[in-house]
Amino acid sequence: MKAAFYRSKGKFEIGEGQQVAPGPGEVRLNVAFCGVCGTDVHIFHGVMDQRVSPPQTIGHEASAVVAELGEGVTNVSVGDNVAVRPLHFGAPHPFDKGHAHVGKNLKFIGIDSPGAFQNSWTVPAYTLHHLPEGLSLEHGAFIEPLAVACHDVKIGRVQAGENTLVIGGGPIGTLIAYVLKEKGANVIISEVNDKRLQMLGDLGFQTINPLKEDLLARISELTEDKMIDCAFEVSGSAPGVKTMTEVVNVRGRIVMVAIHGGEPKPVDLFKFFWSEIELLGARLYEEEDYEEAIRIAASGSIPFDQLITSKDTLDNIQKIFEEIDQNPAGMKYLIDCQA
Amino acid sequence: MKAAFYRSKGKFEIGEGQQVAPGPGEVRLNVAFCGVCGTDVHIFHGVMDQRVSPPQTIGHEASAVVAELGEGVTNVSVGDNVAVRPLHFGAPHPFDKGHAHVGKNLKFIGIDSPGAFQNSWTVPAYTLHHLPEGLSLEHGAFIEPLAVACHDVKIGRVQAGENTLVIGGGPIGTLIAYVLKEKGANVIISEVNDKRLQMLGDLGFQTINPLKEDLLARISELTEDKMIDCAFEVSGSAPGVKTMTEVVNVRGRIVMVAIHGGEPKPVDLFKFFWSEIELLGARLYEEEDYEEAIRIAASGSIPFDQLITSKDTLDNIQKIFEEIDQNPAGMKYLIDCQA
Repeated sequence: MKAAFYRSKGKFEIGEGQQVAPGPGEVRLNVAFCGVCGTDVHIFHGVMDQRVSPPQTIGHEASAVVAELGEGVTNVSVGDNVAVRPLHFGAPHPFDKGHAHVGKNLKFIGIDSPGAFQNSWTVPAYTLHHLPEGLSLEHGAFIEPLAVACHDVKIGRVQAGENTLVIGGGPIGTLIAYVLKEKGANVIISEVNDKRLQMLGDLGFQTINPLKEDLLARISELTEDKMIDCAFEVSGSAPGVKTMTEVVNVRGRIVMVAIHGGEPKPVDLFKFFWSEIELLGARLYEEEDYEEAIRIAASGSIPFDQLITSKDTLDNIQKIFEEIDQNPAGMKYLIDCQA
Repeated sequence: MKAAFYRSKGKFEIGEGQQVAPGPGEVRLNVAFCGVCGTDVHIFHGVMDQRVSPPQTIGHEASAVVAELGEGVTNVSVGDNVAVRPLHFGAPHPFDKGHAHVGKNLKFIGIDSPGAFQNSWTVPAYTLHHLPEGLSLEHGAFIEPLAVACHDVKIGRVQAGENTLVIGGGPIGTLIAYVLKEKGANVIISEVNDKRLQMLGDLGFQTINPLKEDLLARISELTEDKMIDCAFEVSGSAPGVKTMTEVVNVRGRIVMVAIHGGEPKPVDLFKFFWSEIELLGARLYEEEDYEEAIRIAASGSIPFDQLITSKDTLDNIQKIFEEIDQNPAGMKYLIDCQA
């Protein structure tokens, strides 16, 4: 069977994968579609070589059809359409306080172990969520990033009618914007890429380009001086970190979605004191976030087809990753893992 | 009547104050004791001259006896012992969302308007809280900073049995430690001043000097690897900001108590993402925090007398502020405003 292997910085290759018979509690899947995540791009850039084990199959935003059941599996049947929640919970640690999804011993399937960019993938049965009838396998590949967005909005405790700002209108930022809309919040997206701005505007979102407009003045105007109740820092940029504390009002929340690696960034801690604002870290998802994502996806409220930048075959994975690097306006790249 | 006036950087003078007859809804107080707050010291250093209006009487950690009632005042009677919550709420602003204590138009009595370092002080009646019998006027001067501590612990949502760390064992840090103890939390204090460490140890607190011990290893040992559920950054220092993200466990909270003015400080934002930690700003207090502070103070669980570094007269205010600058180990300096 066919599998894509990350070999080294900037290099994938297609080869013969090994079909893994499902052990007890495991399920073998025929992978349908798998989206490319920013983390996959980081791996492609060679910056996560300490964590992956090349040659390794990566990929974790997958929809699939159940192909074979291991012993004792009862939650799914052969032929079921599923989305995969790619978390392998390790042994509980006192440090985790029961939050296994961000626990010390968590292993992420598709990074710490083989992922979905292959025809056939074997995973623990507990990672599987049914895709309801009417939700296509193509759209099912959005469940993982949409669950991230649901988790982020949950951490932000967003209520209907609140003013929210998404800093960074990429794939995750856009899905957060849709979940916020679903919650009845007023949504503004700050983004600097003209093509993305055009696209987000076409999708009906209120956008601001902070390089061309006075962001604070514009938000003040749009919110009638209320400013922002909950901001989502998704940009991973220093200007985003500056903006996040400037826009929120008294007791405003900031959800830290982006992965700010490298040197610690300057943060206006005075504003935390002065206006009693909150910075809330959010990572991955819990089981309920998957259920919420599936519910929202099945409702048809998100025009997934418009968010797909390209849909291509496993054979073209090298080309796809190179194209992503050349296209800062890209949204979601899907890989058809059977084609 | 006698009043102390802040004149300019480094300079107080004692002079004739003006006794203000209470207007409608106001109360004239005979100030009993008033503690010196870090903010008063900042004013003395001349760094808040944009906000104060020299010559100005400052001071806001006051206990007092009600001397005269303005028209319509019913919540206190002449002769009552009271503590003052020195907040003058301004007009509500949409930005505030009803949180008047940190609202855009809040004026702080004792900074933005005359304070308590004088014999007689006239304030709005709604700022007054009764001191119960058995709670001395001397200890009543601790209610304001203790209410800060109660507010901080409330913002931190601390539960009994949780592991907590107070970074900075000065007056506010020590009161936070007492409120945490009252809540049934396990308390560790990180402090670098040897005299303060000695004192905090004598008071029964578990302390760590991060300059002499490996703070993280020590906390790991003391908490059996659980690390800290809620940390309070009270130090206002860059090392404190570094420590605060290092010590907390999954979904750990950090309460930002210190006033980090000046340039934004580097913060490890990655940890927010990775362990879903929270940074919660806290400032001043709400009415309920005063009630809580009075309840705790009246219970006798805090040995206030041991926290008083010096008790002196209004006449000596210049000497007191100079002494505070020379004594980094000092805790609470009280001024007897009738002596």
